[in-house]
Amino acid sequence: MTFLYKSEPARGEHWKSVFAIREPDLAFHIWPEVGDPAKVRYMAAWLPPDDMATGYPNLEVLFSVGAGVDQLNLDAVPPHVKVVRMLDPGVPDMMAEFVVTAAMTLHGGLLAHRHRQDLGAWEPLPFRPVASRRVGVLGLGRLGSVACARLAAIGFQVAGWSRSRHAIAGVEAFSGADQLDAFLARTEILVCLLPLTGETRGILGSDLFRRLPDGAMVVNAGRGGHLDQEALLVALDSGRLAGAVLDVTDPEPLPADHPMRRHPRILITPHIAATAQPETSVEVVLENLRRLRTGEELLGLVDRRLGY
Amino acid sequence: MTFLYKSEPARGEHWKSVFAIREPDLAFHIWPEVGDPAKVRYMAAWLPPDDMATGYPNLEVLFSVGAGVDQLNLDAVPPHVKVVRMLDPGVPDMMAEFVVTAAMTLHGGLLAHRHRQDLGAWEPLPFRPVASRRVGVLGLGRLGSVACARLAAIGFQVAGWSRSRHAIAGVEAFSGADQLDAFLARTEILVCLLPLTGETRGILGSDLFRRLPDGAMVVNAGRGGHLDQEALLVALDSGRLAGAVLDVTDPEPLPADHPMRRHPRILITPHIAATAQPETSVEVVLENLRRLRTGEELLGLVDRRLGY
Repeated sequence: MTFLYKSEPARGEHWKSVFAIREPDLAFHIWPEVGDPAKVRYMAAWLPPDDMATGYPNLEVLFSVGAGVDQLNLDAVPPHVKVVRMLDPGVPDMMAEFVVTAAMTLHGGLLAHRHRQDLGAWEPLPFRPVASRRVGVLGLGRLGSVACARLAAIGFQVAGWSRSRHAIAGVEAFSGADQLDAFLARTEILVCLLPLTGETRGILGSDLFRRLPDGAMVVNAGRGGHLDQEALLVALDSGRLAGAVLDVTDPEPLPADHPMRRHPRILITPHIAATAQPETSVEVVLENLRRLRTGEELLGLVDRRLGY
Repeated sequence: MTFLYKSEPARGEHWKSVFAIREPDLAFHIWPEVGDPAKVRYMAAWLPPDDMATGYPNLEVLFSVGAGVDQLNLDAVPPHVKVVRMLDPGVPDMMAEFVVTAAMTLHGGLLAHRHRQDLGAWEPLPFRPVASRRVGVLGLGRLGSVACARLAAIGFQVAGWSRSRHAIAGVEAFSGADQLDAFLARTEILVCLLPLTGETRGILGSDLFRRLPDGAMVVNAGRGGHLDQEALLVALDSGRLAGAVLDVTDPEPLPADHPMRRHPRILITPHIAATAQPETSVEVVLENLRRLRTGEELLGLVDRRLGY
């Protein structure tokens, strides 16, 4: 029985050394050393092999090495194969710290000050109290919930929106399509932590930007595909939006001559907000292998109908 | 009896309207409408009149409208005149929020990412956990104490240094000249909130920078005079320091062609971190007038020997 790993080799070597001790009966192969494909029962990958559907007749579980599965073509995964996303326990905290940093930077107008510094200007706009700033988080899954809690702990006025209702202490909860308008209308700094699905692709676009208050700001820490990049540039140049922090872009890396790079009101970070760590992510996979044996529910099992 | 105000006129008008109700027996004059200088018992100013020592024979108290008195030539203030700095109750919180924002920005490497964005680069350096970052605050007065507490609440490893020992919950305390080396050696992000005195002028200079760990970063929210600007540029260009956020410069505004403006590892904000608010600062002055009548100790009375 084989566990096939197809992603970053350094992490693969780490996982292999841990598997050797903790799952000695399972052969751990690092792509492209597949061995006998008929023996592959489990696969961990960012992008699975092209012949996954036909070449691995006994595959039972596909583990994504990322927090999302939007990089997968789920329709190409045989229906009986379970798809599991990576619920690294350290990732929500990392993401929350990134979101807080991005929100504080926008809140303090630091991008605008950096630009005025270049221009030779000196404009002592007052530093608003954090308690007067309304931040809204789109998506209240594991990442969004922890981010909301950290933002509220710092003193922001925090609201969250999700498809279905989630209660988080100290956070104003909105849900469903009919409450999205009210959520957006009160949100000065919008943070996107949605999963990327057919429904959410391009959600950060001109229609949504129109429903935010004038001079609102946006943090995209979801996926590059959530953002209509052209609409962002238009909204920033018209003054509709006042700034954006983007940890994700489409494509990544963003081309050196992409117009978003040169925009003074955009800060781009190179997909650093949250990464599953080799040490903790392997523990999640091992726990899921244990759960498979006992028949317990898997951590991060994807609802293939919803796409997350 | 007259209260003479010599500073920003808009704030003066606000104070005047409050004084009219709360201190109806005191004439409130806004510079240059002095009236009879012999009647001036109290003065509030950023920069007092040049003839303060000779022209106001009955002056008893000089209120600075700022948190510091470093803008004053204390030797030119007659010895019997009490000097009081502005302890606006909102200022420590404002300053703490600025310090947290600056520390998070440096911690997250956002200045470096903004620069790489301009250069067309894509370098996904990992986002370090806040809990692994060691921040140190120079100066543990009202501002430094609140800043330490807020930095610690976010999760940074916080230490503070001051001339004399201060205990703050959750903060490692260093004091005196003999503990400064140990404090600097453990500090990755150094925040200056010292008063500006003869002893602290230029303290952020090459000698201090050498005692910080390689790649340390600096936040100056004290006074422009704390920083040796030339030494900062040298330390940044040599890699000794990795970044700086400066809310204060010398002079202010900083000239449009100053080399610090163009440095990619420096973020300059135009003295916005904390400003006494007209509404709250007038209450502090009124409270001090009440204390004068009852003989209680004044809030913010300056020890003229120490200079703060």
